[in-house]
Amino acid sequence: MPLYMDVHKHIPGLTPEAAEGAHAKDLELQDKHGAEFLKYWYDESTGGVFCLIDAPSKEAAIAVHREGHGLVADEIIEVKEGL
Amino acid sequence: MPLYMDVHKHIPGLTPEAAEGAHAKDLELQDKHGAEFLKYWYDESTGGVFCLIDAPSKEAAIAVHREGHGLVADEIIEVKEGL
Repeated sequence: MPLYMDVHKHIPGLTPEAAEGAHAKDLELQDKHGAEFLKYWYDESTGGVFCLIDAPSKEAAIAVHREGHGLVADEIIEVKEGL
Repeated sequence: MPLYMDVHKHIPGLTPEAAEGAHAKDLELQDKHGAEFLKYWYDESTGGVFCLIDAPSKEAAIAVHREGHGLVADEIIEVKEGL
């Protein structure tokens, strides 16, 4: 399954709790779209978030975010993990 | 120690081997700067790379890249890992 890094550049008012809440929604919905949200990293000062996602397609990864909380990423990039 | 995600938007001619070689240089030099290069992900099609780095400062993380291979990131963002 492809691996994606998605990049949210600026989520207004982002807090650790808001990030955790949004991620919890992703985890609830991921099975429906055959995706697995593996990790995320956030920067409270800028509202930036990176999510690492295993998903059957870019569209599936986007659909989880859209349905769960509406915070669709600015970019979603297919990546391979380095050795 | 702070955690950083660095973002290289486009490394011309990036291949898996080139990414691996550059990362090996980072690993060689990281102790000198008190840093630890934890993971990286790359997109061969665009030359994009994300590196996850534990480092005492942004400057220390940048110094490792600069000395090792000169491929300094376009952005380096202090992040926290989500739960």
